[in-house]
Amino acid sequence: MFEADDAHLVTAALVIIGDEVLSGRTKDKNIGHIAERLTEVGIDLREVRIVPDVEEDIVAAVNALRARFTYVFTTGGIGPTHDDITADSIARAFGVPIDVDPRARKLLLEYIPEDRLNEARLRMARIPQGAELVANAVSKAPGFRIGNVIVMAGVPRIMQSMLEVVLPDLEKGRPMLSHTVKANTGEGDIAAGLSELAGRYPKVLIGSYPFRDEDGGFKTHLVARTRDKALLEQVTAELEQLVAPFA
Amino acid sequence: MFEADDAHLVTAALVIIGDEVLSGRTKDKNIGHIAERLTEVGIDLREVRIVPDVEEDIVAAVNALRARFTYVFTTGGIGPTHDDITADSIARAFGVPIDVDPRARKLLLEYIPEDRLNEARLRMARIPQGAELVANAVSKAPGFRIGNVIVMAGVPRIMQSMLEVVLPDLEKGRPMLSHTVKANTGEGDIAAGLSELAGRYPKVLIGSYPFRDEDGGFKTHLVARTRDKALLEQVTAELEQLVAPFA
Repeated sequence: MFEADDAHLVTAALVIIGDEVLSGRTKDKNIGHIAERLTEVGIDLREVRIVPDVEEDIVAAVNALRARFTYVFTTGGIGPTHDDITADSIARAFGVPIDVDPRARKLLLEYIPEDRLNEARLRMARIPQGAELVANAVSKAPGFRIGNVIVMAGVPRIMQSMLEVVLPDLEKGRPMLSHTVKANTGEGDIAAGLSELAGRYPKVLIGSYPFRDEDGGFKTHLVARTRDKALLEQVTAELEQLVAPFA
Repeated sequence: MFEADDAHLVTAALVIIGDEVLSGRTKDKNIGHIAERLTEVGIDLREVRIVPDVEEDIVAAVNALRARFTYVFTTGGIGPTHDDITADSIARAFGVPIDVDPRARKLLLEYIPEDRLNEARLRMARIPQGAELVANAVSKAPGFRIGNVIVMAGVPRIMQSMLEVVLPDLEKGRPMLSHTVKANTGEGDIAAGLSELAGRYPKVLIGSYPFRDEDGGFKTHLVARTRDKALLEQVTAELEQLVAPFA
């Protein structure tokens, strides 16, 4: 999927924490957005895991992935209820203490009157020792970053705002560019030519995605991806030649 | 997330194979459907991984997950083009040979005239040795099952038809039942009572999911999950009492 000899690759994994996604009750809306935004800024999303609200599963996923990728993002499980165990799980993954963080408590007080800042709501101020806070422009309760792990809310609007807060501070590589060419035929008719073309451009990622149009006819989207603009234009021209006989 | 003492638990993991989902170009439509259907029939989906079109990543994910769960489902990468490497990757994961399977070739001939069954299209008949085919009611090119791994297409309509073909032959546990109670307030107001309630029902999974209504007001969905219908009714009644003051 990714060229091996790029000077400066920045990679990421995403851990979605949530029983509700695994049970099918909630349809995830975060993966697509995070994938798009990371790709745009030059961070390659390499793996996504959806895990249940179980501490040992969260710890195992985060520890496996933070060793392999530049960054690990998590979504979900940072609210005030008993099933919100992400912050404690991350503290355990890093082997650091966790407690109510005065900075986070102060942020909550900007949004929640002090007489309503009960023990449950204070859970949202529990932050692993050594973490930096990630501001929440929507409802104040912060996310955080510890090492290369960035912990965000699960509610899409809040997650999106946290992602924009954190992105400027992250390392980036050259963004992957892509171009899509539509073939008015099924994959089987162009596969041989496509394979030959892909063989001649080992540094370009070429994907083939079949679909049916409104009339049920077989069509294919051919997607070329590379960080090199000139190379992308060259491959795009060849892909257009390849599909021309089926126009 | 899951009770430990259930007599007969049947578990599953799902591996989504696709660069196009990780790049954000394609929004996954399979996770939600598979999660819902497995939950309905009594198979607990415990983990989902999205991995790129890279053989070693597919092999690693499938081998890690098939050792831990009753079943592993995969979607994507079984078409005719050079980037369709799922069947070969699964063969490698199991350490078995792979070649064009006469049964699969025959199925393709029901759909594709012999003079159009070129080398590329024949790739769709490559099946690891020892696998059983999974029929494709939409476009014939089959999925397959080897050991506890079930390999399905990525196109949602085809995947859904393959899933229905394979489900009747799988082991099932008692289906997880769930009931949702809506609280007309934010999580922080009910978290303490909810935590106390959850503590008294250790065998019921109780989740709390905040949302904003159309007017921007904070609301919460409380979801109780258990395989025991009577217990579910009892907990539901208690949850309704808990939220009554905010009605």
